[in-house]
Amino acid sequence: MSHIEAKLGALGESLPEYQPPVANYLGCKQSGTTLYVSARVSRARGEVGTDLTTDAAHQAARRTLLDILAIIKQGIGDLDRIVSVDKLVGFVRSASHFTEQPRVIDGASDLLVELWGVEGRHARTATGVAQLPFGAAVQLELILTLSE
Amino acid sequence: MSHIEAKLGALGESLPEYQPPVANYLGCKQSGTTLYVSARVSRARGEVGTDLTTDAAHQAARRTLLDILAIIKQGIGDLDRIVSVDKLVGFVRSASHFTEQPRVIDGASDLLVELWGVEGRHARTATGVAQLPFGAAVQLELILTLSE
Amino acid sequence: MSHIEAKLGALGESLPEYQPPVANYLGCKQSGTTLYVSARVSRARGEVGTDLTTDAAHQAARRTLLDILAIIKQGIGDLDRIVSVDKLVGFVRSASHFTEQPRVIDGASDLLVELWGVEGRHARTATGVAQLPFGAAVQLELILTLSE
Repeated sequence: MSHIEAKLGALGESLPEYQPPVANYLGCKQSGTTLYVSARVSRARGEVGTDLTTDAAHQAARRTLLDILAIIKQGIGDLDRIVSVDKLVGFVRSASHFTEQPRVIDGASDLLVELWGVEGRHARTATGVAQLPFGAAVQLELILTLSE
Repeated sequence: MSHIEAKLGALGESLPEYQPPVANYLGCKQSGTTLYVSARVSRARGEVGTDLTTDAAHQAARRTLLDILAIIKQGIGDLDRIVSVDKLVGFVRSASHFTEQPRVIDGASDLLVELWGVEGRHARTATGVAQLPFGAAVQLELILTLSE
Repeated sequence: MSHIEAKLGALGESLPEYQPPVANYLGCKQSGTTLYVSARVSRARGEVGTDLTTDAAHQAARRTLLDILAIIKQGIGDLDRIVSVDKLVGFVRSASHFTEQPRVIDGASDLLVELWGVEGRHARTATGVAQLPFGAAVQLELILTLSE
């Protein structure tokens, strides 16, 4: 088992079953040592601030990151090839009054730092949108650096 | 004529006339072998799910990609310099109930794969927004890798 | 004083006090010579097109870029290390009828070009969203290239 998957286990988490893309795109695409990871929506549906609380959306973001890690493993074979997390973009389907997007996306950022430590710290955008695919609550995309 | 433009012709498509940026930015910017392509909005205006059907927005996305290819050609001289499509981001101006953003953005993804084959397959984000410049229906941006 | 900070002074501007990230992310993250800069929201709050005019939002974008430059200086030590501005993404919290996002984001683009000249010209996305963290009016993120 990879070092990162062992860390996941120690956190009481595990990789969910891989779910393929829903349309004509790849789960991730490598260019040189850069890995562009496609956006993935949360399994949780609904608008944050009305249908979901901030805490529920925070949990949805963490869970979505787990789904993304399963996609990355499928794409590159081994999560230990990731040497740095460069950028995370998080879209939160937000009620018109909802402004706690940073707290929601911390659900994913926290897990990245728990798994990769200082190299898991990343640049980030957390923003609010009115609608997401399938009516999801949260959507996340990543840019990573892989080992040579 | 370039190989990619010949492929476009075989698909019954052609490059539209180049349209310059509307504000203080470049159509695309190269850094090393990475090409960052500015977002371009569709000529089609309106909200998807009310003013436009999913199919109309899908066609608008394909047409917008053609506009972008003309911009890239203007920027780098020859579309054959593109060796890989890394990432596509698509914003769909969405009615509050509209959740088929992936189907809309496939209009662009399909054409990228038709033109560049396996190297045209890409990471992707398709998301919903409440408003776009000029009231457009769709907005697309790209990250590409160029030959050395 | 750095060359870029001297240019800022000649424009009648200066770097504001550095403000740290509000959640679990870095102000910027370097990968090779690429610098990913986290999104930063404007100090100005409100919806553009109702609470703020286009001109007020344009000024807010320029001011937000100054906040971002202070963050970058904190992260990399010296703004003169920036050799190229590659990409700017600007989210504008838009009233449902507001479509002048490009004019708003020019507030940041103009300053980038004033400071870095031809290398400050960049690819760009300017888009409209319904909500932003803290109810801000504008949010900006950057990708830059640093000297070796």
